[in-house]
Amino acid sequence: MTASGILFVLCAPSGTGKSTLVRRLVAEFPNFAFSVSCTTRAPRPSERDGHDYHFLSHEEFIRRRETGFFAEWAEVHGNLYGTPKAATLELLAAGRDVLFDIDVQGARQLRSSLGQGAYVFLFPPSPEELSRRLLGRGTETPQSLARRMAAAKDEIAHSPEFDYWIVNDDLETAYQQLRAIYLAEKCRPQYQHAWQHIVQQAWGLS
Amino acid sequence: MTASGILFVLCAPSGTGKSTLVRRLVAEFPNFAFSVSCTTRAPRPSERDGHDYHFLSHEEFIRRRETGFFAEWAEVHGNLYGTPKAATLELLAAGRDVLFDIDVQGARQLRSSLGQGAYVFLFPPSPEELSRRLLGRGTETPQSLARRMAAAKDEIAHSPEFDYWIVNDDLETAYQQLRAIYLAEKCRPQYQHAWQHIVQQAWGLS
Repeated sequence: MTASGILFVLCAPSGTGKSTLVRRLVAEFPNFAFSVSCTTRAPRPSERDGHDYHFLSHEEFIRRRETGFFAEWAEVHGNLYGTPKAATLELLAAGRDVLFDIDVQGARQLRSSLGQGAYVFLFPPSPEELSRRLLGRGTETPQSLARRMAAAKDEIAHSPEFDYWIVNDDLETAYQQLRAIYLAEKCRPQYQHAWQHIVQQAWGLS
Repeated sequence: MTASGILFVLCAPSGTGKSTLVRRLVAEFPNFAFSVSCTTRAPRPSERDGHDYHFLSHEEFIRRRETGFFAEWAEVHGNLYGTPKAATLELLAAGRDVLFDIDVQGARQLRSSLGQGAYVFLFPPSPEELSRRLLGRGTETPQSLARRMAAAKDEIAHSPEFDYWIVNDDLETAYQQLRAIYLAEKCRPQYQHAWQHIVQQAWGLS
């Protein structure tokens, strides 16, 4: 592995506050880049091919998927979405950090296909609090609430697969933990090839 | 492993600024405890047995060492020093974090005997800067300087064994990295047994 950027993966049940934390992390650390995904859904009027998504036909998506083109892929409401593996590895090799805000199945595929990265699971403080937050949005029906709570339970059952756990009880504390994980991971030797080279030269180590 | 505290190990060549960083970390995070070491050297007038050190005869130290009593031990200027394994594990099991400011041989012994922890190596920015800092103390002879620089090279040769690398170029940056590593490590699932239990109960996971 020669990548010097970090693959940083954050998973959380819907309503846990993940988007707020991701926005703040990316705003504080401009070294993050996002890889452009591929999708089979039709572009919306404001979307540009190659910028928002790479828009592919269903056949082309399937063809690429079969060649191992995607680091992870998923079907959502009948449309296919996928992350190009080579483009992600190129960003990492160029020293950019790449953030994925993804579900547990996607995280598992990323780990299996890219074999690196820091995987963070974000918990709601309790089922009661998650339910309260989802209802607070004012957009949930009893049926959709029950569906989201069942999905949350399924995702939480996968939390032991992750490297780090954060409980989003207090948003500020959760953010401090998230940024600490990012800063700590940047201190791992595998992301410091350049420094290793400097050290070897300077101290005459081979 | 049932410990919920963290074994936090920091190694650095003499003159790198380790003591300053350790003092600041322990001042900010009061959950750190220190285990009391054993030694065969004579107590100084101000030292109390069981508080500063456990003072042992040479024979008693050797006897304990042969029973695997020590998590790590070393000989310094003819005296033996050792860290009791059981007492360290008890502190960790009680949820206290335990910090070791130790050399690379000691760190290797700790990893081998305790099988857990976060191991951090602190680099001086360059040989020139380390030499400048050591001379700045005003206590080094040419011989002692050469000895310390050779020891630094030996320690740096072991840096690939560590989990995290920090370059102490700017003290504030180095401290922010050190505290990030501590906070991040606290987010690892193996230190969150209590939370795992809460999650399983609350979400009906078994």
